[in-house]
Amino acid sequence: MTHTWFEAHRETLDAALAASESRGYWSAYPEVPSGRIYGEDAKKDGIVAWKSRFGTQMGSDQPGITGWVDTERSPYGIETGIEYPTVDLDVVLPAAAAAADAWKHADIETRTGVCLEILHRINRRSFEMAFAVMHTTGQGFMMAFQAGGPHAQDRGLEAVTYGYREMTRCPASATWTKRVSKTDTITLEKTWRIVPRGIAVTVGCSTFPTWNGYPGIFASLVTGNAVIVKPHPGAVLPLALTVEIAREVFAEAGFDPNVMTLACDSSEAPIAQDLVVRPEVGLVDFTGGNVFGDWIESNATQARVYTEKAGVNSIVLDGTDDLRGTTGNIAFSLCLYSGQMCTTPQNIYIPETGITTPDGVLSFDDTAAAIVKAVDWFVSDPARAAEVLGAVQSEATLDRVGAAASAGGTVLRDSGSVENERFPNARTATPLILKVDASDVDVYQREIFGPVVCIVRTASTDESIQLAASTARTRGGLTAAVWSTDGDVLDQAADALTDAGVSTSCNLAGQIWMNQSAAFSDYHGSGVNPAGNASLCDAAFVADRFRFVASRVPVAAPVEESVT
Amino acid sequence: MTHTWFEAHRETLDAALAASESRGYWSAYPEVPSGRIYGEDAKKDGIVAWKSRFGTQMGSDQPGITGWVDTERSPYGIETGIEYPTVDLDVVLPAAAAAADAWKHADIETRTGVCLEILHRINRRSFEMAFAVMHTTGQGFMMAFQAGGPHAQDRGLEAVTYGYREMTRCPASATWTKRVSKTDTITLEKTWRIVPRGIAVTVGCSTFPTWNGYPGIFASLVTGNAVIVKPHPGAVLPLALTVEIAREVFAEAGFDPNVMTLACDSSEAPIAQDLVVRPEVGLVDFTGGNVFGDWIESNATQARVYTEKAGVNSIVLDGTDDLRGTTGNIAFSLCLYSGQMCTTPQNIYIPETGITTPDGVLSFDDTAAAIVKAVDWFVSDPARAAEVLGAVQSEATLDRVGAAASAGGTVLRDSGSVENERFPNARTATPLILKVDASDVDVYQREIFGPVVCIVRTASTDESIQLAASTARTRGGLTAAVWSTDGDVLDQAADALTDAGVSTSCNLAGQIWMNQSAAFSDYHGSGVNPAGNASLCDAAFVADRFRFVASRVPVAAPVEESVT
Repeated sequence: MTHTWFEAHRETLDAALAASESRGYWSAYPEVPSGRIYGEDAKKDGIVAWKSRFGTQMGSDQPGITGWVDTERSPYGIETGIEYPTVDLDVVLPAAAAAADAWKHADIETRTGVCLEILHRINRRSFEMAFAVMHTTGQGFMMAFQAGGPHAQDRGLEAVTYGYREMTRCPASATWTKRVSKTDTITLEKTWRIVPRGIAVTVGCSTFPTWNGYPGIFASLVTGNAVIVKPHPGAVLPLALTVEIAREVFAEAGFDPNVMTLACDSSEAPIAQDLVVRPEVGLVDFTGGNVFGDWIESNATQARVYTEKAGVNSIVLDGTDDLRGTTGNIAFSLCLYSGQMCTTPQNIYIPETGITTPDGVLSFDDTAAAIVKAVDWFVSDPARAAEVLGAVQSEATLDRVGAAASAGGTVLRDSGSVENERFPNARTATPLILKVDASDVDVYQREIFGPVVCIVRTASTDESIQLAASTARTRGGLTAAVWSTDGDVLDQAADALTDAGVSTSCNLAGQIWMNQSAAFSDYHGSGVNPAGNASLCDAAFVADRFRFVASRVPVAAPVEESVT
Repeated sequence: MTHTWFEAHRETLDAALAASESRGYWSAYPEVPSGRIYGEDAKKDGIVAWKSRFGTQMGSDQPGITGWVDTERSPYGIETGIEYPTVDLDVVLPAAAAAADAWKHADIETRTGVCLEILHRINRRSFEMAFAVMHTTGQGFMMAFQAGGPHAQDRGLEAVTYGYREMTRCPASATWTKRVSKTDTITLEKTWRIVPRGIAVTVGCSTFPTWNGYPGIFASLVTGNAVIVKPHPGAVLPLALTVEIAREVFAEAGFDPNVMTLACDSSEAPIAQDLVVRPEVGLVDFTGGNVFGDWIESNATQARVYTEKAGVNSIVLDGTDDLRGTTGNIAFSLCLYSGQMCTTPQNIYIPETGITTPDGVLSFDDTAAAIVKAVDWFVSDPARAAEVLGAVQSEATLDRVGAAASAGGTVLRDSGSVENERFPNARTATPLILKVDASDVDVYQREIFGPVVCIVRTASTDESIQLAASTARTRGGLTAAVWSTDGDVLDQAADALTDAGVSTSCNLAGQIWMNQSAAFSDYHGSGVNPAGNASLCDAAFVADRFRFVASRVPVAAPVEESVT
């Protein structure tokens, strides 16, 4: 075993270990898409590398290829025409199992070093990855670079860090001496090894394929499992690139590259249902909608399943000492990536009596109007709108916005398209803003994925808090935000919402938004409401991916040091 | 919140934390049933306390009592006539939820202190508990005292220790400062709280109600969940005592005693199936047979389920430098508690070419005969037999032994009863020893719970190892032992068996047996074969019982210290 990579990346790992304990700000991979950091030609090279894939077949070194699919359609309307392999599971699963044998027998430092090297190489190709993410998910370039690149890599590193930490918490061996009578002792030499669950499957999503995929992929990998990556048909390239880079590193390290494999499919011939219930599969990581997530949880009972499903995120608006700052902050959260983040707020609860501001009480209608105005401002400049909104990943989301406009409530702001100068065929939609009453539960107490916002008129902030918390409990929820000038209200809201498993932001102002979740500090997903059972990244996310198993043998009793 | 108990037991906790990391020998609770340790009158007082329950109703302070059941029958044939409450789940579950509210809001030190105090009080009553365990499970007195008392308490303490460790790995708060531009930073004050899953259910077993019950009970409790204890109808008293003591401590600490409740049933009107699938239940700990364990895993999908089910444990006998010592060690493992431990070996694989000994090769038949002889010796003295064998917990186990005698293979040693002077009506059975061929898979590749041993004639030690490992993979397995004078064989066996998730003992000699699993050092259950999904005690066993959930609020940037 070589520990070259482990030693090369040791400082990064040590800093990551420290950050995961202190939970202050830390990042391993620079988020600024700057030539000074990534190399003067990095952006240009990234574009060239990305475009060089157009019209080609990726993953031709995969085992068990049965055909090719071309399922991606850029939300920006450009043609890429990349083909990916469909595979025979009866070939891929045995190939993964065979590759896993040497991988699981490698020592902790070797596996950790390989994972860190993979992440390092992915980081060096962050521009290429940014274009891959942008033109599959529809994210704006900056978000695609950051969330698809360095932030996803940080989340992957976080998983490696937790895996390393968990695996090293049990010593490799220990001497156990027990007195069994007045004169006798028994001494056992115990040796522990890491036994992984076997084969892990990651079922990718279409909106954040790397950010949501890397935690499970790297948590499974570092703990000794082989990983089969099943991308969403609409967002394959970011994960195909990831698998390609990983396989290069495995081969260089002397491992069978089938430690990580790519299994693609199409919506016409999906394979995920067959794959996740295979007896060889011991781990499943899923990010996506509730219907399929629930199905996996109920059916893949042979595996340990980690899910991040959907939820309804809430804002409780009670008061602010900076109306413009608050509505601007809210509007950015609503507009960012056209509301396609799992952390995007959907429901904004405002009391019918209005909110407190430095200029006195602002009525419910005027508060709602201020939010609409702030959103209007964001989308009024086409260049800003194109960057912030990005494009809409799927036609289904666009249809959902259309349906929501006539499904109840009053339309305060209709959704529309925005002009994208560089990509005239981009699929765009600005936020639809509805006004509903607290009693219109059928309208707003369900997830409406995409740029749809419900401003909910409540009797009081008490009711706002109660509705936000109960909706999270019953429908799931990842994030919430509350604005109030009353400390008791903030405490009450934070208590109720965190109790419902929702990460809660209070009185956000400036360049920080409720949608944001930072590796090494923010847990993402609580696992205590229906939005999923996993949290990125805590001990529970990694510790169950392997076991310590012992062998023990009697040895002579250790000689006690005499005290002289 | 008072930290009095936390401070009182702090040294114990600190030592337990250290032991769980070093995994050398350590125990908090003395295993010797000595008056010098537990008080001169402890045994006498224990008997009196135990007998004082005869013919009474226990648990009359439970919520929602609907009736009373008397389901226990001492395997030693004495009458106890204790009645336990059946309860209305529609009352108990809301009562548990109501009690959980203050409990989950208590700080980590308060909850940990309460748990440590409960264990401390249980420890002081270890003699009373020993009689309760002995006369429900059928264990001999010494085992009932040790495994039902101090060893179980150690396992409970281990769970508290891991829970404390996991909960304190995230700081209660942190300041997060990120530079967002050349001139600006954003600073958030983040606060994390522990959010438990809610209500935990422990489904107890009939053979080791405390040893197998305490880990889940205390892991759930310390992490803020309310716990409903559903004992096996045949072994209620040990858990009823536990709940009674816990409720006293809750009340003294100012908590609603319904943080822990007792829900009893009978085999005629079982409630576990209804209970574990209730939506309020977020955690289930189960110890017992595979059929119901599998059912819970497949059906209680609303909860995180931890199971310890059954398996087939193996011995691989290749050679020994001390034949008498080895067969004596094996025989004790077979006889102990009449083979009713989940760690008892069932299959002994011996090559048809015989085993190596200091006196040359001993043939297969002579090796088998040596094991039979060693078992005969153990049961030849009635007093020794009564203590080591104990009694058979259930009539079903006795029936199973009878059926096994004629279900295939050759009977090398028939099961019989032993005379128990003190308890003439005790239900006893010595080990049935069958000789089978490796091809008789229907006979031995299934769990035959109780005193049934299969000596399997294999082509070679290679085949022995392969069969022991593959049986563990397909049927489950917790323990294995191998004896060989060849280091390569030991390595090969340990590798194959640990890879199958089986804790493997090599060349055991003297007063240490493969059945033994010591808290703070031996993981019990691997979770990587069908014998269950849990391991006592690792991070995975506790970390998923709660989540860290954050609230965050912008604050002024911290002042950087100037360097002067």
